[in-house]
Amino acid sequence: MADLLVTGTVALDDVRTPFGEVTDALGGSATFFSYAASFFTNVKLAAVIGPDFPKEHLELLAGRGVDLGGVQISDGATFRWKGEYGYDLNEARTLDTQLGVLADFKPDLPQHFRRCPYVFLANLDPLIQLDVLRSMDQPRLAALDTMNFWIKGKLDALRAVLAEVDALLVNDTEARMLAGEPNLIRAARKIHGWGPRVVVVKRGEYGALMVTRERFFFVPAYPLESVFDPTGAGDTFAGGFMGVLAGGDATDEAALRRAIVYGSVIASFTVEDFSLNRLKRLTRAEIDERYRAFQEMMQIER
Amino acid sequence: MADLLVTGTVALDDVRTPFGEVTDALGGSATFFSYAASFFTNVKLAAVIGPDFPKEHLELLAGRGVDLGGVQISDGATFRWKGEYGYDLNEARTLDTQLGVLADFKPDLPQHFRRCPYVFLANLDPLIQLDVLRSMDQPRLAALDTMNFWIKGKLDALRAVLAEVDALLVNDTEARMLAGEPNLIRAARKIHGWGPRVVVVKRGEYGALMVTRERFFFVPAYPLESVFDPTGAGDTFAGGFMGVLAGGDATDEAALRRAIVYGSVIASFTVEDFSLNRLKRLTRAEIDERYRAFQEMMQIER
Repeated sequence: MADLLVTGTVALDDVRTPFGEVTDALGGSATFFSYAASFFTNVKLAAVIGPDFPKEHLELLAGRGVDLGGVQISDGATFRWKGEYGYDLNEARTLDTQLGVLADFKPDLPQHFRRCPYVFLANLDPLIQLDVLRSMDQPRLAALDTMNFWIKGKLDALRAVLAEVDALLVNDTEARMLAGEPNLIRAARKIHGWGPRVVVVKRGEYGALMVTRERFFFVPAYPLESVFDPTGAGDTFAGGFMGVLAGGDATDEAALRRAIVYGSVIASFTVEDFSLNRLKRLTRAEIDERYRAFQEMMQIER
Repeated sequence: MADLLVTGTVALDDVRTPFGEVTDALGGSATFFSYAASFFTNVKLAAVIGPDFPKEHLELLAGRGVDLGGVQISDGATFRWKGEYGYDLNEARTLDTQLGVLADFKPDLPQHFRRCPYVFLANLDPLIQLDVLRSMDQPRLAALDTMNFWIKGKLDALRAVLAEVDALLVNDTEARMLAGEPNLIRAARKIHGWGPRVVVVKRGEYGALMVTRERFFFVPAYPLESVFDPTGAGDTFAGGFMGVLAGGDATDEAALRRAIVYGSVIASFTVEDFSLNRLKRLTRAEIDERYRAFQEMMQIER
């Protein structure tokens, strides 16, 4: 089992969906990621919060074995995101973003964080992602998530990070936008040319697609009769994916495929409730049971 | 190998996509279906054309072993469809429809057509679909395709056909519209309650999903770098699906899953060129090679 470092946001979210709403809920890309990955390996979290951040949330992560040695407490307010979803749960509408302490976040990794062989740069300013990545001591696998905001606003910095990572995880609109190419497969090929040997395209209710230079792999989304809140689905997908790779300390094709399926398993639980509520009740036995359900749903010959 | 009957449209299409256009091209739901199914079993076609329909098109189908004994030539013009696609190739925009001889189509099946154990009711007026289905002599498996036009305009007739078929093949918007239920899984469950034990949801570039009362099965779309024209993709998917079931004369879960994958294989070739142009060049060896590619893309453990 190898250690996994993540940097990204820790946030307080207000979220409204057609099925309810929450305020001041625990959120943020690195939070969702850490919790999901903690089922599979040891996680080290580099992030920033304000003094207003509830202690119980830190205790929740610490209780999962997440090393909080890289969590800085800065003067100011914790990052806040306010968003809503319509019946098409594939797309969030951002109503408000309050950067707070995130505006001046300069990660300063403890020495023992720098030796993590697996690194995930969750959605965050690509300049910060690059800074974290360059402070690492030759990771075995580094992966990156990003969003349209950075593709539009900081493409040069993003391309610089991309050149130094092994894997990119984005949704399909972002993959097309990043590559400037409407065909998803050609978009993935173009991104391969920029650095990452693995491109994972998240497609919400349609599952995910992994494109390596040699192969394709598809996984469906778990067929749910009720989806309450998609917030964190992509981040927990990434957490499951990276957690499994680090947990098994392997990055060959078979490991990548297993990791993609586990990512889908975790994401399918995330959306069953608001914030991290479903994950808090989640057991390893439930994860493995749903993994077997995925195997069954994808198997041709029986 | 069991015989497969199809009724549906035979048409002349004008189609424009961002990659080119064709006029007076061979089209129609039953045409695409028949050609696709002919790779796997003996097909009998019930349809109507006008005297204007080019003989070479009939010869093309006859050359594939399609029994044209149910093709009526009526006074009037052959059915014509004119449509276009934007860069989002998932949705066709219908520019014009000329029913012609289709307006008074009353299928009168030859006796030897009525004993076909496999029946496919391609997209057509549900009253005609019902008429054809009731003239059959206890088929082993009957399946149905339909579209938003009939869901809106002839729901009662459509529900009557649905009550008598084993399988429904529709796209996801249609499934949701038919069931009046935004969640696709709940929509499929509702449709099960109306008759069909198998609901196949076609999702264009996202593949297809089969929901039976007991199980789910997902297949991706083949990752193509160039899609020229999606016209006929759904019909050839259905042709591959039903052709494989009839060809192997089996309808158990394993047969259904193999059939879904073959349907996806055929559809993936269809969209590589306009009209039936790619299918005309297609060989069984190419089909089997792409089937193996699907197996490879869906396999978790290696």
